[in-house]
Amino acid sequence: MMSIELTSEHGCFGGVQGFYRMASAACGGPMRFAVFQPPQARGGRVPVLYFLAGLTCSEETATIKAGAQRVAAELGLMLVMPDTSPRDTGFEGATGDWEFGEAAGFYLDATQAPWSARFRMERHVVHELPAVLTDHFPADPSRCGIFGHSMGGHGALTLALRHPDRYRSLSAFAPIVAPSQVPWGQKAFARYLGDHHRAWAEHDACELVRRRPFGGPILVDQGLDDKFLATQLQPERFEAACAEAGQALTLRRHAGYDHGYYFVASFIEDHLRHHAAQLA
Amino acid sequence: MMSIELTSEHGCFGGVQGFYRMASAACGGPMRFAVFQPPQARGGRVPVLYFLAGLTCSEETATIKAGAQRVAAELGLMLVMPDTSPRDTGFEGATGDWEFGEAAGFYLDATQAPWSARFRMERHVVHELPAVLTDHFPADPSRCGIFGHSMGGHGALTLALRHPDRYRSLSAFAPIVAPSQVPWGQKAFARYLGDHHRAWAEHDACELVRRRPFGGPILVDQGLDDKFLATQLQPERFEAACAEAGQALTLRRHAGYDHGYYFVASFIEDHLRHHAAQLA
Repeated sequence: MMSIELTSEHGCFGGVQGFYRMASAACGGPMRFAVFQPPQARGGRVPVLYFLAGLTCSEETATIKAGAQRVAAELGLMLVMPDTSPRDTGFEGATGDWEFGEAAGFYLDATQAPWSARFRMERHVVHELPAVLTDHFPADPSRCGIFGHSMGGHGALTLALRHPDRYRSLSAFAPIVAPSQVPWGQKAFARYLGDHHRAWAEHDACELVRRRPFGGPILVDQGLDDKFLATQLQPERFEAACAEAGQALTLRRHAGYDHGYYFVASFIEDHLRHHAAQLA
Repeated sequence: MMSIELTSEHGCFGGVQGFYRMASAACGGPMRFAVFQPPQARGGRVPVLYFLAGLTCSEETATIKAGAQRVAAELGLMLVMPDTSPRDTGFEGATGDWEFGEAAGFYLDATQAPWSARFRMERHVVHELPAVLTDHFPADPSRCGIFGHSMGGHGALTLALRHPDRYRSLSAFAPIVAPSQVPWGQKAFARYLGDHHRAWAEHDACELVRRRPFGGPILVDQGLDDKFLATQLQPERFEAACAEAGQALTLRRHAGYDHGYYFVASFIEDHLRHHAAQLA
């Protein structure tokens, strides 16, 4: 059993918001994460919902800004917010560029040196954290959902499509849906995965959904005032891929909303209810 | 008419969250503030609710962390979050101590040099900002409420008790209620107001409520795991003063909650409904 360390704990909507640290085998060093335990968790194991954050963010970002705990407390969902990459790696080029390296792990296992030694966020999120949740928290491992924002929306879509046995519900806010086709993804994939386009396709939600749709319906919200909409996000690519693949998708476009957490907070209740319905 | 400058604007729960800057005559320099306009503000003037933040905080803190916009959008309340002091004053001792100076203005007009030249948060909050709100936003100046957290709870209580013509509703989270009697208040008052205990009493909620109760009921929430409870907050002093004065007070003590914004967010809906009922 992996050990975890409690950093801080706060009463929150009748449950408990905690921040933790663990020695991660997957990432070869300490990893931080946040867990919200709803009041229902005092009575037994509850479903778990993973939220993956975007570029520049951490396990604190959505915990502080998304306002998810209120509805999670109502619905009896445990919320898990991983960090967005390993930290303090000391690798050259790992800091100083907000689109790559630390806080920009892209939720994959890097294959290229030096990144492959530490940047293994896929196994951290998909295998390591769930084991920790089952061992240390009243989490029901058979009922997991995943969602995320921007780079974390990419993470949620690709991890759920790659590991459908692990996740029963899926949604995203302003996700990167076609990283192979847009600058954020091309820059990160080239360094983490090398110039191997077959490897890129394995972490591209549009490619993956065409190959094998996700079991359940997918909910995606996108703000139309999002400054990254045309260059980095292009949700119409995912819409087309889902239509081709027969994947049930609800893609909602919201006038007047940008890329930030005021947008995420405005619609997070709908996402939590979407997940709760699948995880019931 | 004072001019204001828009810093940023974000769609939020059907309304608009904006951040602004103004040249403040009261504070002798630029002051920042945040305003949430609910969707109802598109149809005419709406009630205004001021939230005053605590030590180390700014106009961003509650805007990001309190989750107030959702219910404000439902109830049609405009939310105004002022900063906690003037900034970049250059005064010796104005920075480097989290309990005094910048981000620790205590919502009073300092009388002692050098602070008296810039630290005039009372006139900024009570007179200057409401004029700006009336001039630049669809705010109804006849329907204002005020609340706040910690030092901002002190601010809300004292400003409403000192200017009952200005505020029709009042509440606080973990407020400093007797600054003359506790270290935070004693340290700040000695420097802002000098060693004049008669002046201190003018900014002490317990003293003020004894002299003249507030018109309406007051709601106060306090966490019992708050590490400042015994040394700095002592809500029992306010409870006793209100009982003496015949002031209607609902003081709720919450087991398991600390001093932070996870506590504030957990109960802010009740505060917004309390204010809406008074401002209807």
